[in-house]
Amino acid sequence: MSASDPAVVKRILEGFDPVKHGLSEDFLLTKLTAMKGCGCKVPRAVLLELLEGLNEEGVKTDEEVGIGLDSCVIPLRHEGMFLVQTTDFFYPLIDDPYLMGRVTCANVLSDLYAMGVVSCDNMLMLLGVAKDMNDKERDVIVGQFMQGFKDAASFAGTKIRGGQTVRCPWLLLGGVGTSVVTQSEMSAVDAAEPGDLLVLTKPIGGQVAVNSYEWLKNGSERFTQLELDEKKVRRAFQQVCEQMTRLNINAAKMLLKHRAHASTDVTGFGILGHADNLAKAQKAKVQFVIDTLPVIEYMDEISKRMPGGNGFNLFGGTSAETSGGLLVALPKDKAEQFIKDLQEIDGFPAWIIGRVEGAPDGVDNRGVVSDKYTVVPVPSSIH
Amino acid sequence: MSASDPAVVKRILEGFDPVKHGLSEDFLLTKLTAMKGCGCKVPRAVLLELLEGLNEEGVKTDEEVGIGLDSCVIPLRHEGMFLVQTTDFFYPLIDDPYLMGRVTCANVLSDLYAMGVVSCDNMLMLLGVAKDMNDKERDVIVGQFMQGFKDAASFAGTKIRGGQTVRCPWLLLGGVGTSVVTQSEMSAVDAAEPGDLLVLTKPIGGQVAVNSYEWLKNGSERFTQLELDEKKVRRAFQQVCEQMTRLNINAAKMLLKHRAHASTDVTGFGILGHADNLAKAQKAKVQFVIDTLPVIEYMDEISKRMPGGNGFNLFGGTSAETSGGLLVALPKDKAEQFIKDLQEIDGFPAWIIGRVEGAPDGVDNRGVVSDKYTVVPVPSSIH
Repeated sequence: MSASDPAVVKRILEGFDPVKHGLSEDFLLTKLTAMKGCGCKVPRAVLLELLEGLNEEGVKTDEEVGIGLDSCVIPLRHEGMFLVQTTDFFYPLIDDPYLMGRVTCANVLSDLYAMGVVSCDNMLMLLGVAKDMNDKERDVIVGQFMQGFKDAASFAGTKIRGGQTVRCPWLLLGGVGTSVVTQSEMSAVDAAEPGDLLVLTKPIGGQVAVNSYEWLKNGSERFTQLELDEKKVRRAFQQVCEQMTRLNINAAKMLLKHRAHASTDVTGFGILGHADNLAKAQKAKVQFVIDTLPVIEYMDEISKRMPGGNGFNLFGGTSAETSGGLLVALPKDKAEQFIKDLQEIDGFPAWIIGRVEGAPDGVDNRGVVSDKYTVVPVPSSIH
Repeated sequence: MSASDPAVVKRILEGFDPVKHGLSEDFLLTKLTAMKGCGCKVPRAVLLELLEGLNEEGVKTDEEVGIGLDSCVIPLRHEGMFLVQTTDFFYPLIDDPYLMGRVTCANVLSDLYAMGVVSCDNMLMLLGVAKDMNDKERDVIVGQFMQGFKDAASFAGTKIRGGQTVRCPWLLLGGVGTSVVTQSEMSAVDAAEPGDLLVLTKPIGGQVAVNSYEWLKNGSERFTQLELDEKKVRRAFQQVCEQMTRLNINAAKMLLKHRAHASTDVTGFGILGHADNLAKAQKAKVQFVIDTLPVIEYMDEISKRMPGGNGFNLFGGTSAETSGGLLVALPKDKAEQFIKDLQEIDGFPAWIIGRVEGAPDGVDNRGVVSDKYTVVPVPSSIH
């Protein structure tokens, strides 16, 4: 079954009309925060420094996958069993609260999928309700958000059985995903080898798509200054909404089927940030070299038109994604079949975007975007 | 071993000096939020209404303990095993970030302890870093908070292996606790019977203690208008800090030992709110009648001096607690021994505060504070 829900695609194409839900015409969910989606992450360098003092007894041990990767994996007291767990929370980046619920849930589950864990045993929902909302807004937004979160959980075959709701100046959305699994139900995450190929399962450019659509919606000068094409911006926004709500569950199944060597999901730190992070987590001395950037159609064009010719540092690889695809390191002879299988189930393409090389002497494991990268524009396939 | 850490008591008695940590003299952690601790909860009636639409397939089923109680309990695919899980997040309510870390961790774990689960397999740390902090403040506060959270986790015999950190207008603190257990490692939570006694393991009045201390610290007019005694307010504040950082772990052990019929921990909805919640979760038709209010010494006096003679509705039972005690329903002949055992291990008292009665005809299960309640002032025992 495709991990893209036709009901969601329908909703995306219809668009969100606040008036239909009893909200004011100019209502914008994204005004309830000053930061968007996974772009709210505390910078990685700052976080690592803060965590440094804690990397000792009491936080994690070497047998465990630590804070650096997507989910934590804990050997349980019960022989042969592992607890796999992840949490994520962020702020609204699109105005339809129902779709935001779907995106939030997909984004949480993605951290399990990145470990090859396809079945989530439990979800918790985390919610901060913006204190400036009136009662009507609160009921509509929270109700729609919860419904979207719940529908995504059902679509993933799991359930929500707990959570916490507090008041907060910004609308805060998140969740926790937990699974208890055996070793064979997890994919390798630290076994990449020189010669492996890198595969990406959703195009990048999400931050450009969300922001350019917001310029359009808010009547921002920027939109006219850059001479943007309204139709193309709208189509890209629909495309990014679809891919943010699409579960990485089938990609996770393919990790197990094709015995991937390493994988992570692409979110706030951008394709390069996560490639770098994943490279550093490998046992072998490797670097991940990205030479192909699949980009949501027209987003490369927008980035080029922006001051500096590289808006959001899209081509530098640090433009933020929310609920992005999986980045996978696979043996050379498995990559094509992985992509073919995934395309067959999901109905969406994936790409070989680079390769795993031995790290040069004196260089730590790292991710890099090749000087000679190629951009592959990816057109929308929903309509 | 007592669940009160001597190192914490030492720190409480020393007090928190921001200057010593390189912060400005007038630094107040509590200024980084407009809501305090568990007082930030979305009102229960609002929450229940919002959740109503979700109480169907996809959220919980009858075999499971749902959103209403402290932790969710999920039967796993692996025969005989259950996933017990909880999350909580809130805002700083005291100015020492280290102690706030201890309180936050104790408060999260308390939801497991309320189910009789004494061993936590994993913790996640949730953190929203106030966006108005400068770098120095951020490093000190986040560092100290994480250290406190980690020390509390170690003291509880568990570890932190993941989490999420985002920027947020307010300093947001929280965590997730998870345990995989067998049936015999959990206490009953819905088996209270008429004739049972109600036991409480920490006094109430936390909200009064924290707020009156803040009036003192901020030089608020209120403090002089109510003619409050500075020494007594300071002592009560130390007392509430100690009890908020004290783990409910030994109380949890006693739940199993004495085969308690039902239990919950007392937090944001106050003693009555949680008694009411617990009563509604019982299989039998019962009401929980509270006739005794153990109150942190002098807090009853402050509440009486406030306009209306019942500040924070302390005597109505809805004054918020943060990391409060366990409220336990026990067979009549077990209550005294429960209290004696707990006192012996922890070195702190507990009280019989009421009884379980059959609910009158036509009345739903509920909690009530008896018209003829008695207040028991509880003096501080740390010095």
